[in-house]
Amino acid sequence: MADILASLRSLMASQSPPLDALLVPSEDYHQSEYVSARDKRREFVSGFTGSAGLALITKNEARLWTDGRYFLQATQQLSDQWKLMRIGEDPPLDVWMSDNLQKEAAIGIDPWCVSVDTAQRWERAFAKKNQKLVQTSTNLVDEIWKNRPPAEINPAVDHPLEFAGRSVAEKLKALREKLSSEKARGIIITALDEVAWLYNIRGSDVSYSPVVHAFAIVTLNSAFLYVDKRKVSSKVSSSLQANGIEVREYGAVSSDAAMLASNQLDQATGVNFGQNGVCQNDTCDNDLIWVDPASCCYALFSKLDANKVLLQQSPLALAKALKNPVELDGLKNAHIRDGAAVVQYLVWLDKQMQEIYGASGYFLEGEVTSKKIPETMKLTEVSVSDKLEGFRASKEHFRGLSFPTISSVGPNAAIIHYSPQAKTCAELDPNSIYLFDSGAQYLDGTTDITRTVHFGKPSAHEKACYTSVLKGHIALGNARFPNGTNGYSLDILARIPLWRYGLDYRHGTGHGIGSYLNVHEGPHQISFRPQARNVPLQVSMTVTDEPGYYEDGNFGIRLENVLVIKEADTEFNFGDKGYLSFEHITWAPYQIKLIDLSILTPEEIQWLNRYHSKCREILAPSLHKNEMEWLKKATEPMKG
Amino acid sequence: MADILASLRSLMASQSPPLDALLVPSEDYHQSEYVSARDKRREFVSGFTGSAGLALITKNEARLWTDGRYFLQATQQLSDQWKLMRIGEDPPLDVWMSDNLQKEAAIGIDPWCVSVDTAQRWERAFAKKNQKLVQTSTNLVDEIWKNRPPAEINPAVDHPLEFAGRSVAEKLKALREKLSSEKARGIIITALDEVAWLYNIRGSDVSYSPVVHAFAIVTLNSAFLYVDKRKVSSKVSSSLQANGIEVREYGAVSSDAAMLASNQLDQATGVNFGQNGVCQNDTCDNDLIWVDPASCCYALFSKLDANKVLLQQSPLALAKALKNPVELDGLKNAHIRDGAAVVQYLVWLDKQMQEIYGASGYFLEGEVTSKKIPETMKLTEVSVSDKLEGFRASKEHFRGLSFPTISSVGPNAAIIHYSPQAKTCAELDPNSIYLFDSGAQYLDGTTDITRTVHFGKPSAHEKACYTSVLKGHIALGNARFPNGTNGYSLDILARIPLWRYGLDYRHGTGHGIGSYLNVHEGPHQISFRPQARNVPLQVSMTVTDEPGYYEDGNFGIRLENVLVIKEADTEFNFGDKGYLSFEHITWAPYQIKLIDLSILTPEEIQWLNRYHSKCREILAPSLHKNEMEWLKKATEPMKG
Repeated sequence: MADILASLRSLMASQSPPLDALLVPSEDYHQSEYVSARDKRREFVSGFTGSAGLALITKNEARLWTDGRYFLQATQQLSDQWKLMRIGEDPPLDVWMSDNLQKEAAIGIDPWCVSVDTAQRWERAFAKKNQKLVQTSTNLVDEIWKNRPPAEINPAVDHPLEFAGRSVAEKLKALREKLSSEKARGIIITALDEVAWLYNIRGSDVSYSPVVHAFAIVTLNSAFLYVDKRKVSSKVSSSLQANGIEVREYGAVSSDAAMLASNQLDQATGVNFGQNGVCQNDTCDNDLIWVDPASCCYALFSKLDANKVLLQQSPLALAKALKNPVELDGLKNAHIRDGAAVVQYLVWLDKQMQEIYGASGYFLEGEVTSKKIPETMKLTEVSVSDKLEGFRASKEHFRGLSFPTISSVGPNAAIIHYSPQAKTCAELDPNSIYLFDSGAQYLDGTTDITRTVHFGKPSAHEKACYTSVLKGHIALGNARFPNGTNGYSLDILARIPLWRYGLDYRHGTGHGIGSYLNVHEGPHQISFRPQARNVPLQVSMTVTDEPGYYEDGNFGIRLENVLVIKEADTEFNFGDKGYLSFEHITWAPYQIKLIDLSILTPEEIQWLNRYHSKCREILAPSLHKNEMEWLKKATEPMKG
Repeated sequence: MADILASLRSLMASQSPPLDALLVPSEDYHQSEYVSARDKRREFVSGFTGSAGLALITKNEARLWTDGRYFLQATQQLSDQWKLMRIGEDPPLDVWMSDNLQKEAAIGIDPWCVSVDTAQRWERAFAKKNQKLVQTSTNLVDEIWKNRPPAEINPAVDHPLEFAGRSVAEKLKALREKLSSEKARGIIITALDEVAWLYNIRGSDVSYSPVVHAFAIVTLNSAFLYVDKRKVSSKVSSSLQANGIEVREYGAVSSDAAMLASNQLDQATGVNFGQNGVCQNDTCDNDLIWVDPASCCYALFSKLDANKVLLQQSPLALAKALKNPVELDGLKNAHIRDGAAVVQYLVWLDKQMQEIYGASGYFLEGEVTSKKIPETMKLTEVSVSDKLEGFRASKEHFRGLSFPTISSVGPNAAIIHYSPQAKTCAELDPNSIYLFDSGAQYLDGTTDITRTVHFGKPSAHEKACYTSVLKGHIALGNARFPNGTNGYSLDILARIPLWRYGLDYRHGTGHGIGSYLNVHEGPHQISFRPQARNVPLQVSMTVTDEPGYYEDGNFGIRLENVLVIKEADTEFNFGDKGYLSFEHITWAPYQIKLIDLSILTPEEIQWLNRYHSKCREILAPSLHKNEMEWLKKATEPMKG
């Protein structure tokens, strides 16, 4: 690790101008949340494996900024050479730079790995002290990374209409209408899930997200896909061609962006849509290039004429978030199969915990005196999560996990995005809370569910905390709200029951979920952080409902379902705004043993009983007899 | 009315440049909410008497923008010559101007009647079409206003320490520290309540708010009060002098602002605070003039060097909102006297409604066949509100009302800021809901309370609506939340029970309240509108809790208490943020007859019973025997 920093610093000094500091973000060229192994540059330099974080290397220091989900994990993973900067507690990067780095410092960044928004924000902040953001011509980390994993050639595949629900032609038509209405003649699409969604293709270049490393450029007349051509079979190639999409090499996006800026891209290709695409009306005035400043890399933006750029959220973000009926059906079906896998897992785990550890089990409260288990029989966070993956893998349309499974015992459950490693992970413990947050990619939809369970005797405090989290989860899920309401407004509903006791959690409450795409999807969210982009919640969006509570060193609790937004059947419609509500599409029981009934209202108990009875009904066809017997017991109606 | 518009248009044409449009805001030179009779220019030109609105007169049109509270009232008051523009539904002013007024139009405004924020926002918006905001050298409305009320000479009085709780010397010291820390050498204070608060003076220049028409300028060395000197007695003058405050004529503020800009104001006065004020350290670098862009008029801002202005919320806004212990005691005492007056009023009104109208009364549900009442016996919205004022006026320290009483029967209650007029107001009706929203100025505090009652047989729908409003009122009042939470986040708590049925209300949920000052006070609020200035709720702030529901043409419901923010005694303190809660300081019963018990939770019923029992306890010493008997009956514990 010391070698890495030393090599980087020597390379920094050799740059022109010499760099006083180097920023190493987590993101790849596409601002992806999950990146391929060869793009884990920040992890390589810092050792910190969390999904979000920003590394800064100066001549004498190395610092890593990350958010509340990762404070504990970063503390454990960072070496002495690194200092953890806690977002929300420590000064943010720009303030720190201005307070600690000398005037006129040169701060390096690979412009392919940073968004326009972030780069411009940094430039403005650094300018206060005449510090400069310097775009490096190569990625300095790549240069010193000796054993960097090679690029894999994974095939791109068609995502058929039976799952996509909407043809590429329809999507391109809607996109071009949007371009026209905003006076744009083209758009550069860099987010991998947007490229995949628009062209109805999927791939396997990145773990957990079925995308292809690719860019797209769409103009009023033409459409391009920039991808390693070895990934594109002749079958895929011809279906792309049928939609007027020209396939070009991945690296060509850079020069094509410049051609687009000088209005030479369309002519150069000769691609023409005939009566659909030829400019015959006032769209001839369109002269802007649309770029989403939150996802487009600074490198591509720099190829454009800044005065002719429309910096605005990509129109694909909302289009993708509004699921079509085929996608909604697929998501609901995928969640039924996924719920069955989760119940099968719980049945299996309950049996193991009793047989191996002598636990009282899922239903009974009893303390266990810990006993020595033979090494070969031990259950670990990783071994049980492999079993869970196995249950999922047996289901139709399974294609992999949608994110690294969080399988965490006791204190590890307090690490919000804990990712157990086979060598270091904890053993299951009948006297501790066990939290698992997991999901899968199915051809017809992406899933994400969290349950928290205890196979022994939970403490009164654990029950009170579990019940408070559950109350928030129910309050949010049962909300009805007028059109125009955003997730920032709703977030408090999930926190109020916790705040009552002075409890809280350091993460947002909900995110959109893709349709066989990213498990974390915008543009909407439910969060205590005000959104820069105010996107109200709308009919046919998906969103998770996942409050939690985490006690460092002790335990963590989180409950998560996926919800679909639908019209609410309200008695009145004040202001003619139309009212919305949520539909749960996740099916798995809450653990009644962990509920303190005395702090639930009659309405909450009624809701739980109804949800549990639907679980039985919906999962019955997918379960074996013994599993169904277990589920019946797990969902027995509670009395208020 | 036609004459007024014709005269204005002819005057507009004679200006240089000739004006294509004239803006007439509601505000006076101090951006006051309540203005003196001679400052009601927008009311004079439009006929609309609501407190908020903006009139626009073009060559051919006259339009008035106002918000949801006033849609009904404006419809009733505006003549055919005027068109109502509904804020939130119709295009806002700037958009309308750009879409409807020609390029390069000259749009006139009196720069004394518009804030810096608003003027600059308009300038930016108008610039899109090369339209110009023109500062008129006189107020055109004043020029054509033949019978404009004369300026009154009302005395300024000291606000003694026993009510103010904090000396002028302390307040000036804290202000100057704040100036120094922001690198400012002076501040122009234009908000009337800020001047009154800082200098511990009160007056009676404006109805409902005990302020003096005055400006203040404070520098690191000097302090000035700009006021009609005839208002300042020698006693007040000498206590001002003792605090180093120089009294100057109201009109002198204009030239003094210019002197301040050129750094000549301090020398010119020779005022010097000796060791406290003399610049002896790095405060010599301070060269900014602090101006609150939301309250300072454009006219004074225009006297300054724009590059040396600190445009930021006045430091007095927050200082004034954080009530000191003496103010909090005063507010609580004032609310006890005020609550007693309200109960006395309800007892009296209950008796009248039964005796005169044969109503079943406050406690019983019975329908009444309407009968002819002799003219002299009739109760009207105005006559009963006069009675309510009478009960208040009999209390210690009473100094007047804090805003025009809203006393409204049936459909009038749906007009959110209804202001009954003696000649046109409605008669009381035993078969209709009656809503009263009122408050008073007492030397020790300002009050504001709303109750909604029915003296006959309310419909099931009215009860359901009343109970939903009550649920929201309770949910907000019972909230606990971490430090840093703003009112925008909490607002939803008051709406969720209404949204459940598709109901809502078109106003915010809470505002700060002054200490013998403005009844509506910032900088915090509880509202669904995101605040431009994110001011979190803090210990010792006051805030109202007033959700409602309004059904046009039928009835209106609102319930309002004043709350004080205090530290919450939570079991835990996650994140070491400290948790806050509310303390109700308003005491008057909710009408049990209007409550649909079936939609209250056991906790809500428990809260109501506890609040009612405190009402009895706290008001007992202030009530006569018969009143106390009535209150006991009105607060009998409910069974869940």
